[in-house]
Amino acid sequence: MTWEETAEKKRAYVRSQIPSEWILSSIPSVEEARNPTEFLDSVLPEDEKAITSKTLLELKDEIASKKLTSYEITKAFCHRAAIAHQIINCCSEIFFDKALATAKELDEIYSTTGKLIGPLHGLPISLKDQVNLEGFDSSIGFVSLAFKPKTKDEVSVIADILSDAGAVFYVKTCVPMAMMAPDTFTNLYGQTVNSKNRLLSAGGSSGGESSLIGCGGGLIGLSTDIGGSIRIPACFNGLFALRGCTGRLPYCKVTNSAAYQPIVPSVIGPSAKDLTDLEYFVKTIIDSEPWLKDPKCPPIPWRTIDLPKQLCFGILTNNGAITPHPPVQRALRLLKDKLEAAGHIVFEWKHPVPIKTIMDNLNDIYVADGYKEAQKLAGDSGEPIIPQLMAFTDDLPVMNVSQHWEQARLKYETQQAYDSAWMATKEHTGTGRPMDAWISPVWETTSYPAGQCKPYHCSYTYPANYLDYTSVVMPVTTVGEEDNVAADYEPLNSDDKETKELWDYELFKGMPVTVQVHGFRYEEEKTIKMVKEITKVLS
Amino acid sequence: MTWEETAEKKRAYVRSQIPSEWILSSIPSVEEARNPTEFLDSVLPEDEKAITSKTLLELKDEIASKKLTSYEITKAFCHRAAIAHQIINCCSEIFFDKALATAKELDEIYSTTGKLIGPLHGLPISLKDQVNLEGFDSSIGFVSLAFKPKTKDEVSVIADILSDAGAVFYVKTCVPMAMMAPDTFTNLYGQTVNSKNRLLSAGGSSGGESSLIGCGGGLIGLSTDIGGSIRIPACFNGLFALRGCTGRLPYCKVTNSAAYQPIVPSVIGPSAKDLTDLEYFVKTIIDSEPWLKDPKCPPIPWRTIDLPKQLCFGILTNNGAITPHPPVQRALRLLKDKLEAAGHIVFEWKHPVPIKTIMDNLNDIYVADGYKEAQKLAGDSGEPIIPQLMAFTDDLPVMNVSQHWEQARLKYETQQAYDSAWMATKEHTGTGRPMDAWISPVWETTSYPAGQCKPYHCSYTYPANYLDYTSVVMPVTTVGEEDNVAADYEPLNSDDKETKELWDYELFKGMPVTVQVHGFRYEEEKTIKMVKEITKVLS
Repeated sequence: MTWEETAEKKRAYVRSQIPSEWILSSIPSVEEARNPTEFLDSVLPEDEKAITSKTLLELKDEIASKKLTSYEITKAFCHRAAIAHQIINCCSEIFFDKALATAKELDEIYSTTGKLIGPLHGLPISLKDQVNLEGFDSSIGFVSLAFKPKTKDEVSVIADILSDAGAVFYVKTCVPMAMMAPDTFTNLYGQTVNSKNRLLSAGGSSGGESSLIGCGGGLIGLSTDIGGSIRIPACFNGLFALRGCTGRLPYCKVTNSAAYQPIVPSVIGPSAKDLTDLEYFVKTIIDSEPWLKDPKCPPIPWRTIDLPKQLCFGILTNNGAITPHPPVQRALRLLKDKLEAAGHIVFEWKHPVPIKTIMDNLNDIYVADGYKEAQKLAGDSGEPIIPQLMAFTDDLPVMNVSQHWEQARLKYETQQAYDSAWMATKEHTGTGRPMDAWISPVWETTSYPAGQCKPYHCSYTYPANYLDYTSVVMPVTTVGEEDNVAADYEPLNSDDKETKELWDYELFKGMPVTVQVHGFRYEEEKTIKMVKEITKVLS
Repeated sequence: MTWEETAEKKRAYVRSQIPSEWILSSIPSVEEARNPTEFLDSVLPEDEKAITSKTLLELKDEIASKKLTSYEITKAFCHRAAIAHQIINCCSEIFFDKALATAKELDEIYSTTGKLIGPLHGLPISLKDQVNLEGFDSSIGFVSLAFKPKTKDEVSVIADILSDAGAVFYVKTCVPMAMMAPDTFTNLYGQTVNSKNRLLSAGGSSGGESSLIGCGGGLIGLSTDIGGSIRIPACFNGLFALRGCTGRLPYCKVTNSAAYQPIVPSVIGPSAKDLTDLEYFVKTIIDSEPWLKDPKCPPIPWRTIDLPKQLCFGILTNNGAITPHPPVQRALRLLKDKLEAAGHIVFEWKHPVPIKTIMDNLNDIYVADGYKEAQKLAGDSGEPIIPQLMAFTDDLPVMNVSQHWEQARLKYETQQAYDSAWMATKEHTGTGRPMDAWISPVWETTSYPAGQCKPYHCSYTYPANYLDYTSVVMPVTTVGEEDNVAADYEPLNSDDKETKELWDYELFKGMPVTVQVHGFRYEEEKTIKMVKEITKVLS
């Protein structure tokens, strides 16, 4: 079979998992339905919309109080995900039958025993393609890995934890080849588009996940992040998201590319419509003591945080590599004004180490194996490397161990320098503490035309991976009339010029504008709580 | 200058730091003084012996209650260390003048302000050669690194933490070349010998540290461990010691060989005469929040543990690679009997993964750079590779990154398998919990003739490094009349045969017999507390 045939077969298979009554008779054109979320609202029944518009915690209560069953909830989300998939192409695996059977079983347990099996009893949770489930592919963007379902022994630790907590899985979601692009396109599944604007990218690599949740086809789900892959799609789709620190949530048995690259590891974490849902979800996983199940998890239990009354935030408005588009700049100004008005302290934060050091070192680490693994996985089916990853086609050397250790040295020394500068802010915050967090754009734009992610930098997302800081993504505003201005800044370089030229109010109108709040290393609880405070201050 | 001249100059320099009144007029022969500890007791004044025989916590109280000054205490330890160095060759740097000046300063602070500057106010602490102090070498066993004193910016984070707590540093201690041998010999300093028997090895790589403390020339100090280097010398010299888990104590800016090998990192930890001292010392470091100073430390605060009344221990009496000598076997039987008599549960523990997998993979990881760094550091002065490290002379390839990642994969999967087996013991412990710890020899013998560490396996120490479990070393008994028996077992292999042939009651008579107690990952507090309980049960 050619790779094209395998890919066609896989797409058809996924589509065949949608009940025929949920298949759209025709797909509206972009002109007819540019905003997928609005389109879904126009075709789905009111009772289901009433369900899918609730939060996870609201639905949890409705199950507990027997106002809704897991079956009803699961069905509403399956239906919405089914329509969403036909519009935005977000799912890599669909298994509504299994989900509804699980939901029914959980409803029966509750009705028989009066007991919920765990904190996520009966609640639908979506999973990025990488998360292994028995009987389903984790093809991580390669045709050669299609139709290679995972076995029982290969199930991800985090999937087992969520199952044990009562979660109902119903879809797995699309990623780009090797999860190494901030866009979501593969030869296997094609292009995933944005949940708010079909002309625009869903982001990547967790583009399927965030676009699904972005248009209400999910409540919360698992993404992963080694350079921005949780955060970029969460940003482009207007979600809350957490990039926790290395091993805070268990990555054990999650399929990955360059899975054993030890210097800057990928992390797994949630994207969600609601921040309190996200907090509850993360607490649920951590309360299961993942360190007993994954040797890479440090035993840090969930900690209850009392925030100081007055917080101090650094704000990074421009990292010196790429200038943010007008709405992103406005969001940062808005934040500053609102935070100050609420009595918090805000000051301008500049990276204390050159952003170029971070970018170059991290890119060098990614390419340490000369992309040989990705080249092999693509080569196995004969598919071409996707345009988003043209660097992968180069004949690059595999580095030797001494070079790799040198990369590790540079990273560690840069971390030390950054940490020291963070701690040294204590001298001028006025709170007696170092700054509590620093806020920055997630991305310089609110998206870009789907499939066209050049030039991409990830210069706003790399620092959290490289330095291993906590990052929580939060929506601030949407692109609106106030942003209908020219980008009138002097570009810093040719990439910045290209980015500037991308600014087009009409194209981005209505898109969410999102920032990230960086807490110190392993400050997931505190950072979530600070984002709660910021969200309160904004509203 | 030839390497021999540099080495001679360095040895002379270190010796020149001993006040002339503390220089022995003649060094007794081994026949005259086989046991260095006894020899020291025979030549040192009673008032000083009264000081050096106390624990750290006793001395802390004596300073607080003004019964003793830091100056008096420091002087007593300097004097004892000075004599010890002349007999066992344990110090790589001596700086009594500086130590006494610091002690005096601290005494003045206390007498003026009535306040102690920290939990270690005025107490002498010894440091393994690797720990960087301003103005002193960290030559890690290479002539080429002698007379290259570290600068203020290079001072180890943990040294700063201890200084801030009030510690008084007075010596740094010898290591073998590259810290990669279980014996302590360099071309720079020569052979360090055991604190109980000058014919025997001090162990390695922290041989200087443990032999110094073993003969009372120190209370507690810092060692490091990547394959047993804290534990082997602690075992050979009859000390308590902690190999905590990766990053629990800060390694930042401690000089190391292959410092950025990321798969099985070295850890830093204490060896001590007294277990309660050790606990206090570790708590002091952790209470300083090292995670704000070292990006590699997970933020795990010191935890107060309530041990369950009934504990369950696995005992590994033979790892299938090397059979322990009769006294080590007796110590394990003794432990079993005493623990059972005290109401604890003990069962036979066997490695659930092949010890050969652990040994081979870890050895492969150590040699990933083909020992190029060590070869260069030796080559820089022209000194030969030491006999203990003949493997370093081979022309080995530098591995590539893909091979290195494959090593990381094997390690992680082996950790998962071992952890699962540990957790699965829950089914048959009878306590409702998995076993609390497993106990094993630290080394198959109680030492070996100094300088003759072939064949060495570290097969009892590697698992804690490789699996990243907590290990606490504890003395159980000493080689005595009961051990005056033949080693009557069938050797498992040729190395085991050689080990068996090493058994010689007359040679090992009086040596400490020591075991290690393995707690789960990051269970330092619990493991220390369990060893307290075991120690109580034994006495």
